[in-house]
Amino acid sequence: MAAVLGLARQIVRSGVLPLCHWPPVWGRATRQSPGFLLAPCRTFSNKKILVELDESSGVATMTFKSPPVNSLSLDFLTEFCISLEKLENDRACRGVIFTSAVPKIFSSGLDITEMCGKSPEHYAEFWRATQELWLRLYGSNMVTVAALNGSSPAGGCLIALSCDYRIMVENPKFSIGLNEVQLGIVAPFWFKDTFVNTVGHRFAERSLQLGSLHPAPEAHKFGLVDELVPEEKLQEKAAAVMAQWLALPDHARQLTKSMMRKAVLDRLVAHREEDIQNFISFISKESIQKSLRMYMEMLKKRKS
Amino acid sequence: MAAVLGLARQIVRSGVLPLCHWPPVWGRATRQSPGFLLAPCRTFSNKKILVELDESSGVATMTFKSPPVNSLSLDFLTEFCISLEKLENDRACRGVIFTSAVPKIFSSGLDITEMCGKSPEHYAEFWRATQELWLRLYGSNMVTVAALNGSSPAGGCLIALSCDYRIMVENPKFSIGLNEVQLGIVAPFWFKDTFVNTVGHRFAERSLQLGSLHPAPEAHKFGLVDELVPEEKLQEKAAAVMAQWLALPDHARQLTKSMMRKAVLDRLVAHREEDIQNFISFISKESIQKSLRMYMEMLKKRKS
Amino acid sequence: MAAVLGLARQIVRSGVLPLCHWPPVWGRATRQSPGFLLAPCRTFSNKKILVELDESSGVATMTFKSPPVNSLSLDFLTEFCISLEKLENDRACRGVIFTSAVPKIFSSGLDITEMCGKSPEHYAEFWRATQELWLRLYGSNMVTVAALNGSSPAGGCLIALSCDYRIMVENPKFSIGLNEVQLGIVAPFWFKDTFVNTVGHRFAERSLQLGSLHPAPEAHKFGLVDELVPEEKLQEKAAAVMAQWLALPDHARQLTKSMMRKAVLDRLVAHREEDIQNFISFISKESIQKSLRMYMEMLKKRKS
Repeated sequence: MAAVLGLARQIVRSGVLPLCHWPPVWGRATRQSPGFLLAPCRTFSNKKILVELDESSGVATMTFKSPPVNSLSLDFLTEFCISLEKLENDRACRGVIFTSAVPKIFSSGLDITEMCGKSPEHYAEFWRATQELWLRLYGSNMVTVAALNGSSPAGGCLIALSCDYRIMVENPKFSIGLNEVQLGIVAPFWFKDTFVNTVGHRFAERSLQLGSLHPAPEAHKFGLVDELVPEEKLQEKAAAVMAQWLALPDHARQLTKSMMRKAVLDRLVAHREEDIQNFISFISKESIQKSLRMYMEMLKKRKS
Repeated sequence: MAAVLGLARQIVRSGVLPLCHWPPVWGRATRQSPGFLLAPCRTFSNKKILVELDESSGVATMTFKSPPVNSLSLDFLTEFCISLEKLENDRACRGVIFTSAVPKIFSSGLDITEMCGKSPEHYAEFWRATQELWLRLYGSNMVTVAALNGSSPAGGCLIALSCDYRIMVENPKFSIGLNEVQLGIVAPFWFKDTFVNTVGHRFAERSLQLGSLHPAPEAHKFGLVDELVPEEKLQEKAAAVMAQWLALPDHARQLTKSMMRKAVLDRLVAHREEDIQNFISFISKESIQKSLRMYMEMLKKRKS
Repeated sequence: MAAVLGLARQIVRSGVLPLCHWPPVWGRATRQSPGFLLAPCRTFSNKKILVELDESSGVATMTFKSPPVNSLSLDFLTEFCISLEKLENDRACRGVIFTSAVPKIFSSGLDITEMCGKSPEHYAEFWRATQELWLRLYGSNMVTVAALNGSSPAGGCLIALSCDYRIMVENPKFSIGLNEVQLGIVAPFWFKDTFVNTVGHRFAERSLQLGSLHPAPEAHKFGLVDELVPEEKLQEKAAAVMAQWLALPDHARQLTKSMMRKAVLDRLVAHREEDIQNFISFISKESIQKSLRMYMEMLKKRKS
């Protein structure tokens, strides 16, 4: 697996995979030898994400299993991209449900340790992987459903927003939102675009400026999630929603999805390197580094 | 009438009527000889649409009377464009109410027989007429009110969306939506733009991908229609809404309407020929033709 | 003060202050001699607006005190711009609350006497000052809260829309909206853009075309204001909301605000002179002048 991870990371790092060449070279190889490479696709558990594909329904489940909080480290992002690409290239798979094996948390978002005290090269690699995940997820041809069985701040919220449908456990202790401002940092424009496409301009403006984390009922009220269910009904509901979406003809549904999301996807594709440079110069500022260190200290203290 | 239809169809076909030259040559001729051409405008019934103009109020009613389902055939579209242009150029007319004489259906949308087994030239003519209708209706200087006394899928929904105000009979058996995906086809970008302008990005994304037909109460809840009324109150309500809109100074209201809709109208004007080519190549695909034939078979079976 | 006003007016008139050179030359001078210029900033009352800065909280209050209706005359706009710029350049100030000392009215909007029977040069100066106010207010780095203790039509509504948060007294006799069409005139595109960013496209389209003034409860329902409170709770609530917004790190919040509003601000900056010429040619039309004179007559009769 390490070799595959290395290869994929190289691809992610190069950042030259244009959306129009989907599937990329590596993906094409998969297609050419389905017998060999599809087998591990049925159920493959990597370090951080368990992927299970039910061939009868065509639905895969990706279960985040990276305690304590499913944070999006470079390794997590890379594994996520690879898994997603495998499923995207697998004709047996038409939809993916995302959920968490960690109690109370879906994903805590981007791993702050990746943004703290590292080299510009590392920041670039990390940010390119983050972009890559969003481009693949928001632009996926598969039906994507977020089954949110815990809180989902920042990058965790982005994953949810990038899906076609969001179901959240109705527990008001679980919250979701792009709370970057609370940490002294700023959500990039494509996080914002995805947010605005989901909840509209005004709610996004207010929520982003305040770095709000919205408890599940509030998130539902404002359209940040589509539906609330009791925890024990979550997987059943996700499967039912998936079945509803899969009842539509794939091709027409995919073209329609692309029509809705293309403008926003294209914007990042057109400004990808610039966005990486912006991220590096912003995150490298001493004031930002200091505030991230303080935030990590606070998290450590809270734990102990 | 055949001659007039032929002339109009030629205009529609040529597709060279830019919005800025409104009214076109044919329309100017109308203006120059009001005595001759305005007379039939008072009440003129063509084959598929009855047009009545009440000169005291300045309000015309266009009643679709093309059973069984007021489908938008090339003839229907052509007659619609001509009637609309006549009213647009008639100083006595300031507003139009659209409604149906066919029970339970406002309009079933684009006529599938026009898209099945025909020549590329026919597809081009049909699509240009569809574009023309939308450009005229969405960009109309008149106040336009849809009085929806029946279901309104696909192109029927587009007509409603292109009006200034939508009133629907509160019968939950009547539904409205852009359900193209259900048929295996895709709503063009300007259907989508009109939909997004009405209900916002998120609702549009979900509804378009699922090809949803929303029962009247749901359509009202999500802003797809502005108001629900009992069937017997529909015309009275439409007249009252029209009177409210006509109470405003025409010129300021028209400039404001144009400001709100210009970006989306301009987008089609700029990509009109490209959009026609896209339509032809999409609809000519054997897979699409097959799925349309299957849909028509299903409709036939349902009838018998 | 007259000299300062003259200087500022010259700046406003020249219209060459690009947003990217903020603070402008005059502002920089302020920064260089804080002891001299900051002192009057603590509490300075000009003719039309009382400005009070509470240094302990960092919150200023700008109270409109220009009876009978706080109309936005050229003098009012100029004073408003100067006060806002002073606060913007004052490190002790992080937020501003806008409210009125005139009973029942927040601001009646642009002063019609400035648009009636004047020279093109005057119209240009007046419109440039209106643009300048909006550019400064909508683009302000400070937290801005509108405490609406009265009606707020047209330009008064624009001021409210340009703030970060709007609180209105729950009195249904107080209304708010962009009612320009009622007067036979048209809100410029940047009024419209600000409106759409707040309430969405569909509500804006309908409300602008009808020139609607929405009573407070309706305004709240449609998101035109964020919150309703009893009159006696207004200032307390405004202070509490301000404290909530000021709890966030300034820099991250400001960058986020700019990200949300930049596209719309840039659009006016790019078309500023064109917009002035449009205003002059529109307002100079005899038909428009006539309808404004009639409106003023009506207002005079109503008073007596």
